Amino acid sequence: VAMESYRGFLALLVSALPVGFLSVLFTLIWVLHYREGLGWDGTELEFNWHPVLAVTGLIFIQGIAIIVYRLPWTWKCSKFLMKSIHAGLSAVATLLAVISLVAVFDFHNAKSIPNMYSLHSWVGLIAVILYVLQLLIGFFIFLLPWAPLSLRQVIMPIHVYSGLFLFGTAIATALMGLTEKLIFALKDPAYHSFPPEGVFANTLGLLILLFGALIFWIVSRPQWKRPKESDSILLKSNCGNTERVEGAVAISSGSNTDRSDSELNNEGATRKRNLGLDDAGQRSTM
Amino acid sequence: VAMESYRGFLALLVSALPVGFLSVLFTLIWVLHYREGLGWDGTELEFNWHPVLAVTGLIFIQGIAIIVYRLPWTWKCSKFLMKSIHAGLSAVATLLAVISLVAVFDFHNAKSIPNMYSLHSWVGLIAVILYVLQLLIGFFIFLLPWAPLSLRQVIMPIHVYSGLFLFGTAIATALMGLTEKLIFALKDPAYHSFPPEGVFANTLGLLILLFGALIFWIVSRPQWKRPKESDSILLKSNCGNTERVEGAVAISSGSNTDRSDSELNNEGATRKRNLGLDDAGQRSTM
Repeated sequence: VAMESYRGFLALLVSALPVGFLSVLFTLIWVLHYREGLGWDGTELEFNWHPVLAVTGLIFIQGIAIIVYRLPWTWKCSKFLMKSIHAGLSAVATLLAVISLVAVFDFHNAKSIPNMYSLHSWVGLIAVILYVLQLLIGFFIFLLPWAPLSLRQVIMPIHVYSGLFLFGTAIATALMGLTEKLIFALKDPAYHSFPPEGVFANTLGLLILLFGALIFWIVSRPQWKRPKESDSILLKSNCGNTERVEGAVAISSGSNTDRSDSELNNEGATRKRNLGLDDAGQRSTM
Repeated sequence: VAMESYRGFLALLVSALPVGFLSVLFTLIWVLHYREGLGWDGTELEFNWHPVLAVTGLIFIQGIAIIVYRLPWTWKCSKFLMKSIHAGLSAVATLLAVISLVAVFDFHNAKSIPNMYSLHSWVGLIAVILYVLQLLIGFFIFLLPWAPLSLRQVIMPIHVYSGLFLFGTAIATALMGLTEKLIFALKDPAYHSFPPEGVFANTLGLLILLFGALIFWIVSRPQWKRPKESDSILLKSNCGNTERVEGAVAISSGSNTDRSDSELNNEGATRKRNLGLDDAGQRSTM
């Protein structure tokens, strides 16, 4: 069962990653081949950074940040290392999103196009502000060691929910943005006459939606959750050898319950106990 | 703790329902006050049924269908009754969605506007086809008594995931549809000059997103799950009195684990045992 579950996870992962990568690639092909290309000069070239950076950051990189705890071969790594990777990916995603906003505001101001009138802009700006907030709360409450466990216990379900809801909102915002841009840009031939660019960009929209579907499926399967700290105490190090991975998989498949609460309770104590182990692990393996 | 959890649920429910109701009301005000009104004559009047029926069906009614098992006062009702309500609401939602498609195809054909060229139409049609499939699978595998438990066990996580993903996709499709219609319809004054209709319809978009946020929060809290059958066997009837509701709440708050699998194993046996109880319950209470 453990091996089957592991293979099932791998099959989904090798489906999700190429779909996410294709989403970024299609966005690049769209702006480079069908649109004017990329640049930073207040023209359409600068606008085009907006979809490229937003899709790369808030969809592809954030999608990976969401499932990074699920990778079975990371279950032997320390929780702190995995938190740092999760936070680092989220920080890069948010940074790219902020630069993507600068690009579109710059372009609008240079061309005297009003800002913030569309539903896409309202939802998108709210989402980016909430992403920044989510990042700060995650950093101060979960990554830094000072927040009391009782606070972490209250905030964790909200953090998980907000992260997933913001990811879904980012996808909806991308689909609205594609719709807007295609209606504005495709005039002759018009969007309704099925020009190659329209069909291509619609396909990009479907790829983004499919990537979201795969990430949501992976993250909502209880059997692919990182095992709770107390189960994997002996496996803790800054990433051990292959035998340890298989051990972690076997442990996880036996416990399909929702572990977030008990995990939180154990985390503080486990983190302290692991300080020495982490150090030893780092020396004994690669 | 049980009472606190019950009050928390009620607070969220009395937030979600008005937001969902306002979404439908805003859609009606949009088409009746800002647009041309409603009719069935191949003109804009017929098109306007499209947003009204799609938002009412796939968002408001389907949102309620998703959380109907969470209402604590229904935990004393038989599982079959609750399944029938869930299936009935979903069937009405899907029917309204299909009529909303007829309205928009009729309008396009009468006005010689091409069909199915936009990303909104691609995602929307795929979603409605999958909703019909979801409804049929739900009916044949979960409502009718003949599917073996092993099959139900395999399909249940997929059914739950698909239902939630389709609900999210319906919201994204609504936001794309609003974007499309506002760009097409608002010409003088244009959408970018902040006309009252643009601000009003953007607010409608935010209401739809907020309704989705509340439904996703309610459905993803483990403490508000319907208690598993074996716990509530004594409470089973076609809806008993108030004391029984409180009993059900107290039982539920103690078990925060993911119960879908064990629930499925017990369901067949429980259903048979409940046939007599259901009948007795119906006679002894209101």
